[in-house]
Amino acid sequence: MSASITSFELYAFWRTSATYRVRVALRLKGLQAREINIDLDAGEQRSPAYLKVNPLAGLPTLIQAGHPPITQSLAILEFLEELQPAPALLPADLHGRARVRSLANMLAADTHPLITPRVRKYLTSAADFDDAAWRAWQQHWFGTGLFAVEKRLASEAATGTFCHGDQPGMADVCLASVMAVMQVFKIAVPDIPLIERIVQRCQQLPAFAEAAPLLQRGAPTT
Amino acid sequence: MSASITSFELYAFWRTSATYRVRVALRLKGLQAREINIDLDAGEQRSPAYLKVNPLAGLPTLIQAGHPPITQSLAILEFLEELQPAPALLPADLHGRARVRSLANMLAADTHPLITPRVRKYLTSAADFDDAAWRAWQQHWFGTGLFAVEKRLASEAATGTFCHGDQPGMADVCLASVMAVMQVFKIAVPDIPLIERIVQRCQQLPAFAEAAPLLQRGAPTT
Repeated sequence: MSASITSFELYAFWRTSATYRVRVALRLKGLQAREINIDLDAGEQRSPAYLKVNPLAGLPTLIQAGHPPITQSLAILEFLEELQPAPALLPADLHGRARVRSLANMLAADTHPLITPRVRKYLTSAADFDDAAWRAWQQHWFGTGLFAVEKRLASEAATGTFCHGDQPGMADVCLASVMAVMQVFKIAVPDIPLIERIVQRCQQLPAFAEAAPLLQRGAPTT
Repeated sequence: MSASITSFELYAFWRTSATYRVRVALRLKGLQAREINIDLDAGEQRSPAYLKVNPLAGLPTLIQAGHPPITQSLAILEFLEELQPAPALLPADLHGRARVRSLANMLAADTHPLITPRVRKYLTSAADFDDAAWRAWQQHWFGTGLFAVEKRLASEAATGTFCHGDQPGMADVCLASVMAVMQVFKIAVPDIPLIERIVQRCQQLPAFAEAAPLLQRGAPTT
């Protein structure tokens, strides 16, 4: 299937980490998607129109014309990889692929779900977290996840200019997505020099730079 | 590569949901792994011997002889699928694969990381959660995740005897893993009849039945 005849719609919001991953992956593969903004701050994810697209009200949702909506960012990245294998987001060898998917899951599955709005809502309502307690929670889980990834990147021979060798892939997309959302929330994690180097390298690529949350429609302009 | 000449070691603990997923997937594919018990209650995940295998002290870790350790259950499932494609844990068509991975991620990425021991440790120490508060937290997130999956299964035409059609796959493995760990922790979620039917169907297969937490080495015998 040629990219030029493939039509995508991406239901998106400027600051979500999971939306960022899909934006980067589409760009890396040279695919275009028409973005439809779902303003989470205005509650648009619960509008009747969006609930028809995604009854679970989550973001992002990718739709390839004529097919059912696809949700969950990692599932979308795997879909794009299979739809358009080049340039690849996963290496060719089975063990390299397992390593990249493991790193991606450490970030997108073990780290990010802990700091989502729904968790914030629970902790600030049912558990009386104040702003400082929520900030400590964010800091703790971002730190835990990133230190774990830093440790692997520093000790494993397969690490290159990027997380795995010298081409950007699925792990880099997830790593940059976590760092991007941390920047939005002004959370700093010290002592992750290898991650910082890799994410800086990512930022030099238009696919990553153009997906920056603050450059998206709906982002605050100041 | 033939299964008969492939040698695996699985670092495992009887009750973890992520270990269960790998146990089921190995059995579905007719692969054998020698299990090495890492007693989380005794802190064996922090022993020098295990930290050499997995410096992040997580479970499970799968090792194929002669290769680096593989961590993160979803990465391991994808690895096994690529190593030994039949019987398949993912359907053949791209959109079916995306649906199954999306369902799997709703459970293994959006639901399970919220109720892990490390989260319990944080909430009971830093946030003064007592047993009742932790139980309410577990109940809330298991419920949120399972209701969301139930809603999809009930409304999407691709649902069959199993989550996707009439063969067990990656989504069923993740669904059964969540239900298995809920049983261990005696958490009940009402009003998920479709999930209950699918998981009962899974339990009729030896690959699922034999992976039950209480049948594993190290499980309590009463």
